[in-house]
Order: sequence, then C-alpha cells, then structure tokens
Amino acid sequence: MSTIVLVSDDDASSEVMSVYDDIRTTRGTDFINNFWRALAVNPALLSSTWYHLKSIMTVEGAIDAKTREMIYIAVSTANACSYCVHSHTAAAKAKGMSDDEHAELMTIISLAASTNQLANGFQVPVDPEFLVE
Amino acid sequence: MSTIVLVSDDDASSEVMSVYDDIRTTRGTDFINNFWRALAVNPALLSSTWYHLKSIMTVEGAIDAKTREMIYIAVSTANACSYCVHSHTAAAKAKGMSDDEHAELMTIISLAASTNQLANGFQVPVDPEFLVE
Amino acid sequence: MSTIVLVSDDDASSEVMSVYDDIRTTRGTDFINNFWRALAVNPALLSSTWYHLKSIMTVEGAIDAKTREMIYIAVSTANACSYCVHSHTAAAKAKGMSDDEHAELMTIISLAASTNQLANGFQVPVDPEFLVE
Amino acid sequence: MSTIVLVSDDDASSEVMSVYDDIRTTRGTDFINNFWRALAVNPALLSSTWYHLKSIMTVEGAIDAKTREMIYIAVSTANACSYCVHSHTAAAKAKGMSDDEHAELMTIISLAASTNQLANGFQVPVDPEFLVE
Amino acid sequence: MSTIVLVSDDDASSEVMSVYDDIRTTRGTDFINNFWRALAVNPALLSSTWYHLKSIMTVEGAIDAKTREMIYIAVSTANACSYCVHSHTAAAKAKGMSDDEHAELMTIISLAASTNQLANGFQVPVDPEFLVE
Amino acid sequence: MSTIVLVSDDDASSEVMSVYDDIRTTRGTDFINNFWRALAVNPALLSSTWYHLKSIMTVEGAIDAKTREMIYIAVSTANACSYCVHSHTAAAKAKGMSDDEHAELMTIISLAASTNQLANGFQVPVDPEFLVE
Repeated sequence: MSTIVLVSDDDASSEVMSVYDDIRTTRGTDFINNFWRALAVNPALLSSTWYHLKSIMTVEGAIDAKTREMIYIAVSTANACSYCVHSHTAAAKAKGMSDDEHAELMTIISLAASTNQLANGFQVPVDPEFLVE
Repeated sequence: MSTIVLVSDDDASSEVMSVYDDIRTTRGTDFINNFWRALAVNPALLSSTWYHLKSIMTVEGAIDAKTREMIYIAVSTANACSYCVHSHTAAAKAKGMSDDEHAELMTIISLAASTNQLANGFQVPVDPEFLVE
Repeated sequence: MSTIVLVSDDDASSEVMSVYDDIRTTRGTDFINNFWRALAVNPALLSSTWYHLKSIMTVEGAIDAKTREMIYIAVSTANACSYCVHSHTAAAKAKGMSDDEHAELMTIISLAASTNQLANGFQVPVDPEFLVE
Repeated sequence: MSTIVLVSDDDASSEVMSVYDDIRTTRGTDFINNFWRALAVNPALLSSTWYHLKSIMTVEGAIDAKTREMIYIAVSTANACSYCVHSHTAAAKAKGMSDDEHAELMTIISLAASTNQLANGFQVPVDPEFLVE
Repeated sequence: MSTIVLVSDDDASSEVMSVYDDIRTTRGTDFINNFWRALAVNPALLSSTWYHLKSIMTVEGAIDAKTREMIYIAVSTANACSYCVHSHTAAAKAKGMSDDEHAELMTIISLAASTNQLANGFQVPVDPEFLVE
Repeated sequence: MSTIVLVSDDDASSEVMSVYDDIRTTRGTDFINNFWRALAVNPALLSSTWYHLKSIMTVEGAIDAKTREMIYIAVSTANACSYCVHSHTAAAKAKGMSDDEHAELMTIISLAASTNQLANGFQVPVDPEFLVE
C-alpha cells in the first residue's frame, strides 16, 4: 500500500523518457531528482508540470534566475515543504546564491513571518493610503 | 471590546513618539501606517519591532532593497497576511518594482505553491544528493 | 448565490434555538455571535460543534480558561483566521487577559513564527536527544 | 525526554483497549496505526477523537466514503501534515481511489494552491455578486 | 499607489478581450469575476492561468466537476484564501452542490484540520505499513 | 551540495563560541541543540536570533515560562514546524508541563484549527460587536 512510487529510467514509458530527456538537456546534467520521478506515475501530470515550470524558471524574464530560486525558497519555507526547500536551495546555490545571500534570505523570511503574525494577530486594518491610486 | 486600537500622534507617549519620529526620518515621509500605530499600544513591542525591521530592511546587505521587499511579499502571500501584502507591495513599488516584475513575482509564488503541494501530496522523499556535500 | 447565511432567532428551528439557548445560558449573555449563526444552516453541525467546544473550553481542566483562549488566539493567528482572532481576543479579554499579556502573547507568536521559518528554511535535523527517553 | 510515546496493546489500559477494539471492529483489520497509539497517552483524547472521526468518516452521508478521504488528503496536503497524507492516501486507496483519480486530485490541489496565491497576492476584492442571494 | 487594478472590458486590450471572450463562452455567462480582471494587468499571466485552469476544471476527467470544486474549496479554506472560498463555493453550488453536501464538506475539512494538528503536535511517526507495497 | 551545515564547538569561531557559551550559561546545560548549530553558519544571524529569543523567553514577564513554551508549541504545530515542535515540547516539559497539560494543549490546538476552518470555510463576517469599544 505504498504511497510513494519513483519511476526509474528502466521503468519509464517513452512519454516519461521524453520528459526526462528534456529535463536533462535543459539542466545540463544527467541527474533527475525524485520530484519528477514521483510525478511520472502520471505522464500527463509530469509533462504539464515540467513544461510549465520550465517556461517560468528557465527563460529570460524580469527577475534573474538566482532571485527566482530565492523567491521559491521563501514560498517553500512558508509552506513547510521540506522537499522543496532542499531542492530549491540546491538550485539557488547552483545559480550562484552565496552563503551571505542565503543567510540574509533566511533573515528576511523570518522577519516577514514575524510581522505577518503581528498584523494578523492585531487584525490591523489596511490603510486607505494603500488602496487608492 | 475593540480588538483594534490605533495610536494617533496626539495620543502617543514620548516613547512612542520617538519611534514614530525615527520611522518618519528613516523613510523620508510623514506617513505612519497602521501597523506601527497598532503595535504602539505596547511601546516596547513597537520599539523592538521597528528597530529589528529597520536593521534588516533599510541597511546595505547582500540582497538589494527592492528584492528584499519582493521576498517579503512572497512570504506574506503564502502566509495569507492581507495587511502585509498591501503594505509591502506599496513598499516594493516605491523601491522600483515594475509591473512586469510584480507579475513575474506572482507567477513564481503561484508556481512554487503548486509544486509545494505536489511534493507534499506525493510525499516525495528528499534525494540523498541534496543532503551530501 | 450568497455564500453566507446567518440564522436569526426568528428563523431558527427548535433544534437551533435549543443550541442558542444553551450558548446564552453557558455564557451568561444574550449575544450570539455570527459564527454560531452561520453554522446554524446545518443544525447538526451547529450542535456538534458547540457541544464539542463547550466540553473543552468551559469546563475545569489542567489549563485555566484565560490561557486556553490565549492558545486559541495563537493558533488562529498562525492559521490567518480573521474571524477567530477577533472572537477569541474578545473572549480572552472577557476572561481577564490584560493588555500586557496580550502584547506578550503577540510577541511570543511572532517570535515562534520567525524561528519556525529558520528551522524549516535551514531544514534543521531533529536532535537525537529530543527523541529518546 | 521523548516527545513521542506509542501505546502498544500490552501497555494499553482497559479504556484504551476498548477504543482499539472498536477501531479494529469498525475497520475490519487488526492493524492500529501510530496516530491512535500516540493519542492513547491520554485515553480521553483518544476516545473523543476516535468517536468523533468515526461519526463523520464511517457513516452514510451526503458525500461518499472515497471522496471524503480525497478531501481529507487535500486538507492534509495544504496543511503540510506528512503523517496525514500518508494515512489518508492509504485509506483512499483502500476505498477505491484509482491512480488516475489520485493524480487528478493532486492536479486540482496544486492548481487551487496556485490560484489561492494569485488571489491573495493581488488582494483581489470579492465580487458583490458572490455576496448577494 | 493602488495595489489592486481591475481591467474593465473598456480598458481591455485585444489579447485580454480574447481571454474574456473564452471565459464567457466556456462558462455560458457574461459575468467575468474580479480574479480574472485582476490578472489582466498582465495579459500573459491572465492567459496562461485561464487556459491552465480551463484544461483541468472544465474537461471530462476521473473526478466529476462538482467534486473538483469541493476539493478546491477544501484547499482554499486551508490556505485562508477568502476570495477563492467565495468564488469556488459559488461555482460548486452552480454545479449542484447541495446544502447538505456543503455542510458535510465543512465538517470533513474541519475534522481533517483538527487531526492534522494532532499528528503534527505529537509528531507521530509514519507507520512502516504505509511505506511498503 | 549539502543544504545543512551544523557548526560544532571545534569549528566555531570566537564570535559563535561566545553565543554558545551564553546559551549554555543561560540554560544551565552543556547541550547546544541543532537549531543554534545551523544558524551558526552566519554568526550575526545566530547572535541576533539568540539574544532576541533570550530577551523574550528567559526573562520575567506577564506570562509564565511554561505557558510561553506551550504557546510556542501551538504556533509551531499550526506552522507544521517539526523541529520546533520537538524542541519546544522538550522545553515545556523541562519547565514543568505535565502530561495532562500537554494533552489538553493538543486538544485546544486541534479544536482551534477545526473552528478556524469553519469560520474561513463559511466566510463568517466579523460581528460589529467585536469591533467597537
């Protein structure tokens, strides 16, 4: 009654293998992390998730690639997604996040969470100044 | 039995007024938003929160000021803090966040939340590769 | 296509009215807050929720009534439940929570949220010392 | 200073054993999962939690048993409860959830989380049309 | 410094209008709710979000349309997304969710959240039985 | 590409060692738990976090030390911080939390989470009575 199945290369259908190949080419590494191997139990889910993520995280955009990964870490930390914190911390480091940037990111996430609680805990009303043009 | 009290300048003790003055000087504006006026019911809480936030968000650091505010928005959105989303969106815009950066930020937050659920929902095990040096 | 229906005394069935009566008697006030009026669209849900809450929050226990309400505020703040923060802050004040206790509660909630993020963000492994007898 | 105690059959008081027996009879299996063994440190908590859950999840209702478990998975995933995702995924599968339904469930949870962030991140105001009858 | 902009039909570019048209056709109503009008500040975000959601929520699948909306409500409630609870409760009702099903949905969400806390609060270890085939 | 580094005494700089010493003196134990060893990768983060926490959790205040730890557990449970639940459950027990108090705490957290969902799920409007003096 396993709740976790990871699709190895040997067990991959051609549809799954095609996505694995694109992940490898896009990232320039042979390594496929477990997230994708878990989604591969449903090839359509694997495919739509990968191409959606690829279209956001690997193209030129208004925000640079390293910063995108740092924002990803922030959301994953707030959502208590252990897997995602691990994988996106690795990704951010691979894209150049320094130890100082990592520590400062943690500091900001931690500060934001603390003032989120104060605003929610005191139920501070939104200032009209924030709502008008 | 009001749960929300906002301390106006007229009602501010000298301890509160001293913090209000520092907020105004630091930010270069006369406007004090409700978050600080709510914390001012307890001058020590107001003071420690402001000087802590000031030491992180207004100094030179490894991450630039605009990006810090965008990370703040990411955490506040994930934590469903309506007030904080409003105030830090205003702050990020004041520090130069463009409409394109704002939309891309929302796209990344949204993507991260969606894959957070997939990783948590499939209970994907962390790859050993993420844990070793 | 309203998503919110509040059952007034005039519209209450006898089953609902019986719960409203017990709320009034237990609390010693005629006031029925909207939470109960919303649940009353389904009398069984109203009844089971009220008697469950009553059995926990209004009896003698290991934790005093004021502290129980303060714990309730902590959870409601972390869960971003605006309604619950309002109603349980009122309840805690009615049971004697002082302004100083309220401010200290907010300080602790805020601190806890901040270190929660640090532990999750750095994925700190649980010490073996916490797991053994 | 262990934070986790699991009450085995051998260590169970008669009050605990009576609940264990009812779990076994209701589910038609000898297996008692750790959740109940952890609650058993406090027999009253074990008993009230089991009979409350039993009254909701094992009776005839407006929603079928398999769908109830799938809703349970959705909430547990959003709340990052690893244990609950594991146990209720097993329960949903035991009640007939197919692999396709599981994948589609994950897709919907993931989509919902992503648009939750967009609505919260843009602070979209609720349409008046949603509030009127 | 408004944080909320809603794009009316009059202000819509042809790209935005094309999505609005598809929303109207797909849903068989002239009404465009604020969520889409908020995303329309960035036509690419509007377009990708709508077509992604449409591909999941409006096609034939393993889970029926009404149940999908109920799962959406569950996630939105757990994530404290006020807007999403409103809009998807309206959608679920439009797709046939009865008052009894709504109340039972709320009961299950509420139960799940309560046992999520117990499992997380006691840090119950996952049973090996849930992890093996 | 390890995401977790724990700074041992042997690897500690004098700045880190000074904080470790203060933790040991303040707590009257030689044991330094992993949370602090993880923060120590950035001495400034370690120092500011420790002295901030120390100023709140180890001084005389309006709320007693045991209750503070119980509030900490409540927030950590709601935020799904596994590490924090472990460490603060140990701390609360060390400060005298009985098994009955622990079970009652879990009961209240669980109840609060369940009614949080009901209030959010039905989008119950805040009573005007909660907003006026």
